[in-house]
Amino acid sequence: MDKEEGIARLQALGFQPCEAEALWEHFDDAERRGKTSHGYARIAWLESLDGFEPHAVPVSALRDEGYWRWDAAGTIGYIAVRTALVASLEEPPEHARLLVLENCFPTGMLGHHARFAAEGGLVCVVTATSPARLGPPGGPKVAGTNPLAIGIPSSDGRPVVADVSMGAVTWGDVVAGNASEDELVPFGGEQWHKAFALAVGLQLLVDALVTRPGHGVVMLLARPEADPVPRLRSLGLRLPGDS
Amino acid sequence: MDKEEGIARLQALGFQPCEAEALWEHFDDAERRGKTSHGYARIAWLESLDGFEPHAVPVSALRDEGYWRWDAAGTIGYIAVRTALVASLEEPPEHARLLVLENCFPTGMLGHHARFAAEGGLVCVVTATSPARLGPPGGPKVAGTNPLAIGIPSSDGRPVVADVSMGAVTWGDVVAGNASEDELVPFGGEQWHKAFALAVGLQLLVDALVTRPGHGVVMLLARPEADPVPRLRSLGLRLPGDS
Repeated sequence: MDKEEGIARLQALGFQPCEAEALWEHFDDAERRGKTSHGYARIAWLESLDGFEPHAVPVSALRDEGYWRWDAAGTIGYIAVRTALVASLEEPPEHARLLVLENCFPTGMLGHHARFAAEGGLVCVVTATSPARLGPPGGPKVAGTNPLAIGIPSSDGRPVVADVSMGAVTWGDVVAGNASEDELVPFGGEQWHKAFALAVGLQLLVDALVTRPGHGVVMLLARPEADPVPRLRSLGLRLPGDS
Repeated sequence: MDKEEGIARLQALGFQPCEAEALWEHFDDAERRGKTSHGYARIAWLESLDGFEPHAVPVSALRDEGYWRWDAAGTIGYIAVRTALVASLEEPPEHARLLVLENCFPTGMLGHHARFAAEGGLVCVVTATSPARLGPPGGPKVAGTNPLAIGIPSSDGRPVVADVSMGAVTWGDVVAGNASEDELVPFGGEQWHKAFALAVGLQLLVDALVTRPGHGVVMLLARPEADPVPRLRSLGLRLPGDS
């Protein structure tokens, strides 16, 4: 799919030009990184969805120096996160800020948001919940694949972005027929309990910080005090998120 | 080892009674959880250490509503984290606070600290760096085992505490001869790159937030807005950190 077609189809769904552009960037970034289940296929998926309102705007519900809470308020999660991030970069924390976005789904590839924050100069740690698809072997599904993404700015202009889902495969892989639902288990093989513990911990983190039940996003933003990436990059190994 | 002997040996090292008690609690908690490399053996290890000052006290370097930075200032890491946590519980954030502890090592079993915060009513997410022992296969060691611990308060009085090291085995296991140094790799088997990405991300998170190079601790504390643990516990499965 080319950009012109993508933008046109997103605008046809009712998104404003700047929102369509932000969504296109997200899907195109995913595609270039080989995460095709977060890529162009999501445009057809949006076209098939009910229940999102392209004209909704996320609402800032609480704004303290170190803590912001937003309600996606019917906005699709991608746009709600982007809106809160743009506002955060316009008014960055003096030191650190926790962002909680309630009622916020789907949010896409969290590394994309972490990279946006890091390119804007802020350290970012972000997680988001999704339908419960992970559980212990033979047990109930109690946690989403709940990725954890960490973005670190760098003076060389190339942030490091780790973006790790707790599932051995993605739900997108299952939907695309590239993996079976049985394969959607906590990653780690014999040490599956480690990824399961992280998925449960992140699930409860979000569930404890939202004021109403539902999927949500928890994001920490902080000003860096040091610039550790260039030295690490000088070792010549491939770093998380590098193409 | 019984408590009387443990406390006596810790006081003989110069620790004040309340500090010796806090250290004993930590080691005893580790022992009861089967994490013996974080348990009583650490007392003999402390007896063998140079370079820590039992009479040092951690210094609060910066204190904003949503951000505190401390310097362990020669205090052993366990005590520095405990001191910062006790101060945080005495003066809890209205919503959320990021704690950065510089020059802070060793910190022990992070789940112990996360549980202490959660028992005090605060959601806690904490990581800490340690000597670089993880790398890609055949590559340089660039990240500590950098655990991530998440503690969630519960109205049933039993917090959930996930505490996950990014290593397939612990350094303590290597020291105790229970594992070889070759086995100290990112966990995950074929998906080792996921735990490696998390270890690198957490390493850079700490390295970007400290003002001077060195091991450090980054901890998020937040007031819960909801109480998701009892419902999850009602499903009857074993949750992270349950005995």
